[in-house]
Amino acid sequence: MTDVDTNKPLVQGGTIGILGGGQLGRMLSVAASRLGYRCHIYEPDLHPPAGHVAEDVTTAAYDNTAALERFAALCDVVTYEFESIPTRALDLLQDQRPIRPGRKALWVSQDRLVEKRFLRDLDLPTAPFLPVTSSSELISAASKLGLPSILKTRRYGYDGKGQMRIEKAEDVNTAWTAVSGAKSILEGFVEFSCEISVIAARGLDGQVVCYDPGENIHKDGILRQTTVPASVSNTIKTDAVLIAGKILNALDYVGVLGVELFVTDAGLVVNEIAPRVHNSGHWTQNGCAVDQFEQHIRAITGLPLGNGQRTSDVVMQNLIGEECRQLQNYMTDPDTSIHLYGKDVAKAGRKMGHVNRSTPRSQ
Amino acid sequence: MTDVDTNKPLVQGGTIGILGGGQLGRMLSVAASRLGYRCHIYEPDLHPPAGHVAEDVTTAAYDNTAALERFAALCDVVTYEFESIPTRALDLLQDQRPIRPGRKALWVSQDRLVEKRFLRDLDLPTAPFLPVTSSSELISAASKLGLPSILKTRRYGYDGKGQMRIEKAEDVNTAWTAVSGAKSILEGFVEFSCEISVIAARGLDGQVVCYDPGENIHKDGILRQTTVPASVSNTIKTDAVLIAGKILNALDYVGVLGVELFVTDAGLVVNEIAPRVHNSGHWTQNGCAVDQFEQHIRAITGLPLGNGQRTSDVVMQNLIGEECRQLQNYMTDPDTSIHLYGKDVAKAGRKMGHVNRSTPRSQ
Repeated sequence: MTDVDTNKPLVQGGTIGILGGGQLGRMLSVAASRLGYRCHIYEPDLHPPAGHVAEDVTTAAYDNTAALERFAALCDVVTYEFESIPTRALDLLQDQRPIRPGRKALWVSQDRLVEKRFLRDLDLPTAPFLPVTSSSELISAASKLGLPSILKTRRYGYDGKGQMRIEKAEDVNTAWTAVSGAKSILEGFVEFSCEISVIAARGLDGQVVCYDPGENIHKDGILRQTTVPASVSNTIKTDAVLIAGKILNALDYVGVLGVELFVTDAGLVVNEIAPRVHNSGHWTQNGCAVDQFEQHIRAITGLPLGNGQRTSDVVMQNLIGEECRQLQNYMTDPDTSIHLYGKDVAKAGRKMGHVNRSTPRSQ
Repeated sequence: MTDVDTNKPLVQGGTIGILGGGQLGRMLSVAASRLGYRCHIYEPDLHPPAGHVAEDVTTAAYDNTAALERFAALCDVVTYEFESIPTRALDLLQDQRPIRPGRKALWVSQDRLVEKRFLRDLDLPTAPFLPVTSSSELISAASKLGLPSILKTRRYGYDGKGQMRIEKAEDVNTAWTAVSGAKSILEGFVEFSCEISVIAARGLDGQVVCYDPGENIHKDGILRQTTVPASVSNTIKTDAVLIAGKILNALDYVGVLGVELFVTDAGLVVNEIAPRVHNSGHWTQNGCAVDQFEQHIRAITGLPLGNGQRTSDVVMQNLIGEECRQLQNYMTDPDTSIHLYGKDVAKAGRKMGHVNRSTPRSQ
């Protein structure tokens, strides 16, 4: 264990604590190993995928004070693979070790209302939105923003969970029941031609590196495919990267951040930000010298950021549920790289792995 | 745990047992994770580097019957990162699980005399050699093969250990003392312009994939650098690949094999073979779609072999001892990828990591 409160890089052999033991933690741990670091996974569920490639695993709930304190004591720096970490756990860890990315990024991204206001205050375009805490507020918000619009819980939403589209006035009650009356926001509908995302990194010294924007296709709220380069103009690409840079600086961010953007006739609209490595950045594993996972580890350990330039075109395809069983074609395609997560049960809708198909760089 | 005695691929989630917990086991474990497998490391030393990225570690000696049996019971297939595994341990494991590459490859490569005879019986050119079991035999062998020549113990030699160059008649006694009177061979001196190596793989179904030959530079018996492409003619490259293929087939081999060859005026001379992933194949991590580690995992789990075509030129440089502390230049070079092994102590002569510098493919 080493003092990393200074701007000195974490020494080789140092330990990175990762909150969350899913596929993102798994690939972070592999990247950390290339740089000579060890990882310690903190995860309430037994047998987390990240545990297969980490030195240590703590199996405990996020309200287990003793476990959190022991975990912090064994780590040099703490990071995370998801943003819905209870505030109390963060307070406790922060007393002992640096948390990177920092609390501000978590505070902003944990709550859709806070996030929208943060983006608005930066003069970044977002969907029109209104806070909603009751069914009558929802009715009033729907009449102001118009229909269709989308009700989203302020907290704990991912992969389309905690979201409900309202098409017509009669849907309001159904939607309010569906979110179980949780504090929410109503978002006005944005007409967009496609969704792109930028994966960007900021180092401990403020250095910023952005990957090329990727173009995303979702199905049932789950990302299915990311393609680089995105089929948008260079102006749009530059705008996207500038938006990501603005967000990184405003958050005094350290690590990798994902920014999802809608491409509209009037320009880009920020959909949401994720203060972590992001599914739409998996293409970097086979399209860049330094992928998003190593970039994140470099940032949070105080190393210089690496080369994020794109070396090839890539189509990243998620393997959802049983899709991870039909790999024969991917295995024998010379241009496809396979990345499986080692999850035991291929439940419907569960991300089981992804494949990256690389072809020579076209532009 | 699954039955892999058939030719069916090991199912995702299956466990690969790896004998040896060094950097090769470490990088094998990372590659296995990409394919959804878990690794269990068997290693007598505490805190092995491979343990940082493996699901399980057994810390026990190779003569610990109970530990070996428990290990075998927890694995689906057993492989290894070094060839000097005691025969008794192999017998024990083989009764329970398939060992890949198989026993013949181990038997051949564990003993320099057996290896030389095996190569000679395949009509492959080797250095002239004679077995030596006493100082008088050494004197007689030296007079037959001429000086300089090299005394090598038949077993347990690596990184120049167990080798002694005999320049003049007076060196004979020193050399014999240096090898502590161990059964040895004397090898006649081979005049060569450079050393190259071929990393080759053979699947469970007999499919063979060879990587481009790399050109090696050693210092003090330790590999320092491998460059691809090697600066030899296409004829030499093809000959090298054909030799590797012949060896793979003769051993009914399953997995990745390294073949070191001397380039002489009279053609290629086989120096030695290693029945495992090989230091001179680390360049494949940044020069091929599927690297030697994933290729080995694919072979031993019965998956189809992957694309071993070279996509760029690469210079692989080992970081020996304290060299792993001076990484600043490598970290900021956009063409360099870093691979550290997480070893605690940077002892002189110890392999601590390597870097791959990639440039566009020249030929």
